[in-house]
Amino acid sequence: MKTINIVAFDQFTDIDVFLPWDLFNRIRLIRDDWQVKIVGTQEKHVSMNGLEVATQGHIDECNEADIVLFASGKGARSLINDKGYLQHFDLNPQRQIICSMCSGALILASLGLLDGLTATTYPTVVEHLQALGVEVVFEPLVTHGNIATAAGCLAAVDLVGWCFERAIDKATSEAVLAYVAPVEKGVLSQ
Amino acid sequence: MKTINIVAFDQFTDIDVFLPWDLFNRIRLIRDDWQVKIVGTQEKHVSMNGLEVATQGHIDECNEADIVLFASGKGARSLINDKGYLQHFDLNPQRQIICSMCSGALILASLGLLDGLTATTYPTVVEHLQALGVEVVFEPLVTHGNIATAAGCLAAVDLVGWCFERAIDKATSEAVLAYVAPVEKGVLSQ
Repeated sequence: MKTINIVAFDQFTDIDVFLPWDLFNRIRLIRDDWQVKIVGTQEKHVSMNGLEVATQGHIDECNEADIVLFASGKGARSLINDKGYLQHFDLNPQRQIICSMCSGALILASLGLLDGLTATTYPTVVEHLQALGVEVVFEPLVTHGNIATAAGCLAAVDLVGWCFERAIDKATSEAVLAYVAPVEKGVLSQ
Repeated sequence: MKTINIVAFDQFTDIDVFLPWDLFNRIRLIRDDWQVKIVGTQEKHVSMNGLEVATQGHIDECNEADIVLFASGKGARSLINDKGYLQHFDLNPQRQIICSMCSGALILASLGLLDGLTATTYPTVVEHLQALGVEVVFEPLVTHGNIATAAGCLAAVDLVGWCFERAIDKATSEAVLAYVAPVEKGVLSQ
């Protein structure tokens, strides 16, 4: 079974967990060998908008996952100063796809995963990410090998598409994204 | 206080609750007189992908809300045969904006809100909606006065934008959607 872990925490940005959560889960409409989990350090985490979500695993599981996505939110800004939190992660971009939405890039940087790489992040986080030594570029999606950063919440579509293209193939990626495309005049997408 | 209610139920499509949930909540970054609630018939509802979400109100509250959005999912198909469920709603498009994502249009139709109107829905639901007497058109967003149907999950962006343009003004709508736009090369959107 291939596993995708979305890392949530208290004060996560709703859309940056839930949009990838739905998009990643669409692979299960095509393939039965993938599972998606929202992972955290508590049984439940509360979003920026006050929504309570039950986690389905612990962040320790990320070290064995095939794809790890760090969500964003105010919570990320405090976690990067929490050595005990960061020590849970022993990620390896040689064998894992590792990515972030918006301010989740701060966690990637704090784990040393963006050393020497360019990255993108939410406009309000640019200076913070630069202060961690990362060269920020203004693109929706920036990839280097198995590492990707995406920014501007709707860029999750590009990010998830890229993950499936890299992990499986382009046709599968396109099939996944077709499930959520806006209906077009005269087109029955499925 | 202006209220937006998103109607959830068991077996809801994750993205069709959570994407509007985040987008609608963005208004609170600009205006302090709006609140957003996920409403249902139970304290918690479980999504198609198995995510448990706590509701923040009962569907009865929809009758007094300023904007009501019906989400989609397998659950919608059984609810339209549940007279007890439908009887909770006494909606009025003269004073309320009433809309649906994807198969949520089945509930609008069952409440008589699409009588004589065209509507859009998810491709797999077209025949079902037609069987309820609605003329289906293949557009991401179809509006008639205060009633709107949207289809293809990412069309939630168009729908939420339309709601705020109608309820407030175009500038506010554009400001809300700017918060979630993908970062563009050279553009700091905020």
